[in-house]
Amino acid sequence: MGTARVVFDRWDGTYAERMASVRSSAVRDLFGAATRPDVISFAGGMPDVSKVPGDAVARAAREAVRDHAATALQYGSSEGRPGLRRIFVELMAESGIRSKPDDVIVTAGAQQALDLVAKVFLDPGDVVITEGPTYLGALQAFSAYQPRIVCVPMDAAGMRVDALEEELERLGPRGAKFIYTIPNFQNPAGVTLSPERRRRLVELSRRYEVPVVEDDPYGRLRFEGGHCKPLKALDEDVIYLGTLSKIFAPGLRLGWVCAPRPILQKLLLAKQAADLCGSEFSQAVAERYFAGSRWRRVLASLTEAYAQRRDTMLSALAEHLPPEVAYTRPQGGFFVWVELPSFIDTKPLLAEAVERGVAYVPGDAFYPDGRGRNCMRLAFCYAEPEDIREGVRRLAEVFEDRLELYRAFQEAGCQV
Amino acid sequence: MGTARVVFDRWDGTYAERMASVRSSAVRDLFGAATRPDVISFAGGMPDVSKVPGDAVARAAREAVRDHAATALQYGSSEGRPGLRRIFVELMAESGIRSKPDDVIVTAGAQQALDLVAKVFLDPGDVVITEGPTYLGALQAFSAYQPRIVCVPMDAAGMRVDALEEELERLGPRGAKFIYTIPNFQNPAGVTLSPERRRRLVELSRRYEVPVVEDDPYGRLRFEGGHCKPLKALDEDVIYLGTLSKIFAPGLRLGWVCAPRPILQKLLLAKQAADLCGSEFSQAVAERYFAGSRWRRVLASLTEAYAQRRDTMLSALAEHLPPEVAYTRPQGGFFVWVELPSFIDTKPLLAEAVERGVAYVPGDAFYPDGRGRNCMRLAFCYAEPEDIREGVRRLAEVFEDRLELYRAFQEAGCQV
Repeated sequence: MGTARVVFDRWDGTYAERMASVRSSAVRDLFGAATRPDVISFAGGMPDVSKVPGDAVARAAREAVRDHAATALQYGSSEGRPGLRRIFVELMAESGIRSKPDDVIVTAGAQQALDLVAKVFLDPGDVVITEGPTYLGALQAFSAYQPRIVCVPMDAAGMRVDALEEELERLGPRGAKFIYTIPNFQNPAGVTLSPERRRRLVELSRRYEVPVVEDDPYGRLRFEGGHCKPLKALDEDVIYLGTLSKIFAPGLRLGWVCAPRPILQKLLLAKQAADLCGSEFSQAVAERYFAGSRWRRVLASLTEAYAQRRDTMLSALAEHLPPEVAYTRPQGGFFVWVELPSFIDTKPLLAEAVERGVAYVPGDAFYPDGRGRNCMRLAFCYAEPEDIREGVRRLAEVFEDRLELYRAFQEAGCQV
Repeated sequence: MGTARVVFDRWDGTYAERMASVRSSAVRDLFGAATRPDVISFAGGMPDVSKVPGDAVARAAREAVRDHAATALQYGSSEGRPGLRRIFVELMAESGIRSKPDDVIVTAGAQQALDLVAKVFLDPGDVVITEGPTYLGALQAFSAYQPRIVCVPMDAAGMRVDALEEELERLGPRGAKFIYTIPNFQNPAGVTLSPERRRRLVELSRRYEVPVVEDDPYGRLRFEGGHCKPLKALDEDVIYLGTLSKIFAPGLRLGWVCAPRPILQKLLLAKQAADLCGSEFSQAVAERYFAGSRWRRVLASLTEAYAQRRDTMLSALAEHLPPEVAYTRPQGGFFVWVELPSFIDTKPLLAEAVERGVAYVPGDAFYPDGRGRNCMRLAFCYAEPEDIREGVRRLAEVFEDRLELYRAFQEAGCQV
């Protein structure tokens, strides 16, 4: 399915207009290559589940069906299990967010929450503001509802709120449906929104009456620096998305959305229409897993491993890539964003990279409009340190010829 | 969340237009009442999961994380696990459908497949043809994409294909986006589409170039009569929806869609946008559960129990309800459809019924346009036989006064 095959489509012309704007996910398309044993993958943001204790999951499953036989295999409420929603409230409290279980709906990963938010707010042509680059799954979820996506640039301190203000001023009050942001260790840029800009962002949200959608999958995976309060802790009207995919396991597809009640009621209707309710079984397993304290030790060991991999990747990038190549230095999370000279297009070079045994995601996947062609996202979360070093070496080989050419051009005084 | 609370909504006016047409699910709203121990519920179509062996599920979970540690807790492909798709192909083969794993996408229950089909095909104002009454979850999924829903009436042999033909003729070729049907033990009507009409339906689908969406959650829960070949076995272009919710457990949220490749590729994009991929953990558990043969014995015992409950409900209805009340006699599945005299409105009477300790779903929930007010759906799948008898007795009490009045009217020669 992943590879394009030419099939005569007699339904051509009968699909909804939205399907013209829904692109395939570059990460999903790379899923095959990314899981090939001979390819070192910096492509997907796949957590290292080898550190998640299978025995704890098996025990949680056994206890779930034993102690909750009547509910764990049955349909559940669309909001999700009360016990799991309490756990989400506690997780948020540890980050500084005050909420109640009734402020939360369990979703199939944060991705479903993105889909539901878009479904609830977006008519065709509505404006959504995102960081540029931004999470490609968000672009995919939003684009199914045919919005106009406006990207605000970032620097090392995250979204440039001065540029955001200009955009909001241009659009006028309620001129956008929401501002989508990943403030911690942004996907794909790896940068973190500074505390000052967080305060400014929620002020702008209030002034221009445009709600903020805060996506926080990586907030607990900090390697260094102090914890930054989530936007939701600064403004209770923020729509906050959380997930267990990075602190437990993506294979259970569990996330949540915490939002003001009126919005939550709309999201609940959209959730019912989408899948009736989440998996009670997955939810009961997660309830058990988070009931103890072992998950904290697992998370600590995950964070330590990711920190080491980031260090390895940054030092390998410094060693193998020439100074013309810029890249970010994330304080947590999964990703480094690499910017190559503007004449390099990372998309056609990907096939060559996979051929050489390394995969990345081309930068244009993270923009709605074809920008980012000279960029790429590297995920350091999945590969072991020795593979990261080798992978960056292979990556450098891919670009070496082109970069030498670039240098020759520059030395000859040419403009690229 | 279920109960309406008056909350000032400062986002009022910013929601998408579609939210005006998405109604709350009557079944979901009744979820609270339906699970109260003092209420005998004929409301939700909840399977009797007490017959599903918890130990087999726990063992499947243990084996899944032990033998598939690298995949069971990880993100998976958007199509779903190949092993589970092979199982779905085998299940379909037993019903007479020839397919391959590449023809199948795993979904979060059949409900997600309904959402994805609607997302792929429907622009606002597009026509969808359904049976009237039809599954309320389908109405909910479709209505989020703002179609015009046209209901075709049924009789004891299912959808009246003569009325369907008239409708298709009126609309012209490709005048509707798809025909949605539940041919086996229809939800909510309980009737089954005859083999002759199945052939006629797919002929009409071809002639008018309107694809059929066949929803078959109950096909394997037949109590009597011969197996009817699915529409998908008569025409490979049918979009077929299956689910494990009724033959295993809804708590895993596993269903599938089997469709022609070009349509499947569109559904896959919509699936990626909706939740990236299904739960690998649930899928791995189901793979294990269906690897053995015990599930067949469990299914046989479930079917036997449902048959007994149907018998009990039909005899209780015959005993307690007067002859003015019509109801269907399903040969399988979960539901009986009850039609009361036209002056009775089942919706306002529901509160009284719950007060008396019995719940049903008012008939208008199964129409897009307010029809069905004098009808109700009774699910016989969940309550034990003695409770079914008592529940029908309580139900009769609710309507007794009204029916006596009706009789008095009739005896007096009045027209109602």
